[in-house]
Amino acid sequence: MPSLSDVMKQWSSPVEMLRNSRIGMYVYPVVTPEFQNWRDEQRAWRETAVLFDQSHHMDEVIVEGPQATEFLSHHGINSFANFDLNRAKHFVPVTPAGHVIGDHIIFREREDKYILVGRAPTSNWLMFAAAWGKWNVRLRYDPRSPSRPEGERVLREHYRFQIQGPDAPKIFEKMNGGPIPDIKFFHVDWINVGSKKVQALRHGMSGAPGLEIWGPYKDKDYIHSTILQAARDADVQLVQCGSRAYSTNTLESGWIPSPLPGIYTGGGMLADYRDWLGADMYEAAGAIGGSFVSDNIEDYYVNPFELGYDFYIGWKKDDFIGKEALAAMKGSPKNRKKVTFEWNRDDVLAVIASAFEQGTPCKWIDFPQPNYASSSADRIERDGQMVGMSMFNGYSFNERCLLSLGVVHQDVQVGDILTLKWGEPDDTAKTSTERHRQAEIRVRVSPTPYAQEARENYADSWRTRVAE
Amino acid sequence: MPSLSDVMKQWSSPVEMLRNSRIGMYVYPVVTPEFQNWRDEQRAWRETAVLFDQSHHMDEVIVEGPQATEFLSHHGINSFANFDLNRAKHFVPVTPAGHVIGDHIIFREREDKYILVGRAPTSNWLMFAAAWGKWNVRLRYDPRSPSRPEGERVLREHYRFQIQGPDAPKIFEKMNGGPIPDIKFFHVDWINVGSKKVQALRHGMSGAPGLEIWGPYKDKDYIHSTILQAARDADVQLVQCGSRAYSTNTLESGWIPSPLPGIYTGGGMLADYRDWLGADMYEAAGAIGGSFVSDNIEDYYVNPFELGYDFYIGWKKDDFIGKEALAAMKGSPKNRKKVTFEWNRDDVLAVIASAFEQGTPCKWIDFPQPNYASSSADRIERDGQMVGMSMFNGYSFNERCLLSLGVVHQDVQVGDILTLKWGEPDDTAKTSTERHRQAEIRVRVSPTPYAQEARENYADSWRTRVAE
Repeated sequence: MPSLSDVMKQWSSPVEMLRNSRIGMYVYPVVTPEFQNWRDEQRAWRETAVLFDQSHHMDEVIVEGPQATEFLSHHGINSFANFDLNRAKHFVPVTPAGHVIGDHIIFREREDKYILVGRAPTSNWLMFAAAWGKWNVRLRYDPRSPSRPEGERVLREHYRFQIQGPDAPKIFEKMNGGPIPDIKFFHVDWINVGSKKVQALRHGMSGAPGLEIWGPYKDKDYIHSTILQAARDADVQLVQCGSRAYSTNTLESGWIPSPLPGIYTGGGMLADYRDWLGADMYEAAGAIGGSFVSDNIEDYYVNPFELGYDFYIGWKKDDFIGKEALAAMKGSPKNRKKVTFEWNRDDVLAVIASAFEQGTPCKWIDFPQPNYASSSADRIERDGQMVGMSMFNGYSFNERCLLSLGVVHQDVQVGDILTLKWGEPDDTAKTSTERHRQAEIRVRVSPTPYAQEARENYADSWRTRVAE
Repeated sequence: MPSLSDVMKQWSSPVEMLRNSRIGMYVYPVVTPEFQNWRDEQRAWRETAVLFDQSHHMDEVIVEGPQATEFLSHHGINSFANFDLNRAKHFVPVTPAGHVIGDHIIFREREDKYILVGRAPTSNWLMFAAAWGKWNVRLRYDPRSPSRPEGERVLREHYRFQIQGPDAPKIFEKMNGGPIPDIKFFHVDWINVGSKKVQALRHGMSGAPGLEIWGPYKDKDYIHSTILQAARDADVQLVQCGSRAYSTNTLESGWIPSPLPGIYTGGGMLADYRDWLGADMYEAAGAIGGSFVSDNIEDYYVNPFELGYDFYIGWKKDDFIGKEALAAMKGSPKNRKKVTFEWNRDDVLAVIASAFEQGTPCKWIDFPQPNYASSSADRIERDGQMVGMSMFNGYSFNERCLLSLGVVHQDVQVGDILTLKWGEPDDTAKTSTERHRQAEIRVRVSPTPYAQEARENYADSWRTRVAE
């Protein structure tokens, strides 16, 4: 198998390579596209309760061994000081240059055992790092389910469900056979689901109270049916969320799932990493989509300050990868800040209208999830100058508008009207997009998280840490 | 298990029952939603070549035995006189009252063995009829794949692929290792796919030349990879069609997949049938969606003349179910005729615009497939009076418009501008639709099939038989 380094040699730049990937859409696999309809599925997380089946779209990495804590602490920016067994964290690794590689949710299962859950870039980095650094840890990798199983059976290590929404607590009480413990945000405790004891993480992905529960995959059907029965017993309208609505929940709550891993440049460990990464892996096979085209791949990178992750940083740790670079970046006026872009209705309708005319249309806005690559990068302009990058798009039936998440220069203010360039300037080999012309969509800069509920209820969570 | 009859007793009418079904969308299961993107997948059947995987969304019924021909001939309207082993037919059963029950494609595999492929209503009817009439036939039933397998393995009796489009013949020649036999429309012959001999039906679902091939499901991967390789060898851009684009191909070619089976009324055999049908079967669990609401279920029925199937009728057969009723219907001015409705762009955009406003929106038009029930029935009006029924909707990127298929009164002419009432007048229990208000969409009455290619290349096929 050729490596990422080998593949990169075939292209004038990694940008060219990724912009011409033929891998297709970034798929949320296995889970049915719609259980009811995606509008009501979105509405449920705001108004009643929703059941997310998260068993299939994320990697899992189990890290255990005498050096598990030391290894993870060295490869993530996070403080591990307060990492009790009853907590989870939002684990963020960066490169030696301080660029975000990705992020996982990390659970501490024992003193010397952790489970990490999320997209491939963090999994790959940790698997490489464990071997490269000769750490005394064992990693077990359970990759996300295949994007197109086409009827073949799919098995995972764990099932993973999340129940959310204003009525969710009534369901928890029925599931548990009595009041559940008062679990703080991003803390973990044990609850009952029928006759099973399961671990539950207090979460709130779409901006409403919720629990994430997980356990052995063979228990999935039992847990699933017990949850549905508990909802009936509690007389709560629990709506199962399909894969079409699923990925849009983050638009309302403000997490950017898909920063491009900053690993295409840099020597030393990073050069070795590119030799280690296979041509079929996310970093080599994934796609960049959007109107922003630069021949410098570093222009697509982000740092933890820009994503609002700066308060995770364990400055007191002796050392961790990227510490020095982050210290230099801290407080830099060049750091952008995370915002939500609210797309102008008339401009969106004009784009849609082009699909009813002969000739080359604008890039189709697919509902509710218009992303057409593993990482999106659309130009945000003011007076024709680029002042930001839109990184994740989606339509919210709750807000009745298209939203996107991204980063903007420091001098951009909430309320500013900017322009999002929609569609690519040229034809690429990407299979996920039809031939199209570019359009301009006005966007209003809005707070992150956008959802009022998320803003109010999670005032102390990372999701609300908007760079001011 | 309660029967359809039992379930019907719980409702004021079968219309109420079906309009409030909670089964959800009619799903095209297992096949990935998009291999590339649905716009280019649609474009491929018009401009290059497309690969349909039809292995999962249709029932198969195998009928064999000494009375196989007699049995099928008695339960279908079709002439069996010219039914050689190298032919297929479009098999249409009707009730004793002459109402269409459904339709299947029927292949004659041996003198006394047939394979039928299609939606459940025809399968169910044949299984019932075989037992009810004490025929000396054996039926084997392979139901369509589950709508939501959620990672469980799915197996079928046969794989079934269709390759279509202007460049398809070049692929056939590569697959076959030389020119393929000249197979006439709806005739069957043997070709090679790599080292396998397979049966091929000359077809043309989306209005372009094509072959449908099938064989044991265990051969699916071999056949699939051999087709893809043949396309590469032929330097043809063969696009795999996902489940989102799949069902829209019929809009361009003119077949209505989903007439409501006319089995909810009538005594004798039909009353026995309703006692036989289970509460979980298509006829009891399926859904009616759309703006047309009548308390008489018969208002949703259609007859073979209305769907353009009259020239199939084997008038010379001694007897078949419905013969007398069809003879009485023949030439009746009450018979409607099949047309394509071309939806007005501005009215469509106004419906879409309502999804960007607060309050109750219009029924969301999902792209490319806006149907939200097993059978659709939307009112077609002229000056407020109903003059037709729209029965199957979809967006065509090739035509850059929304189209629907349906039936209209005889006095409606091609070119007439009518009004389609979009959305339901009331809230139903259907899970497939969000709460909405009704809208009016102007439609231009257009020929069936709509696609110019289909009109030109299939001038002698049933698809072009438009009632004038």
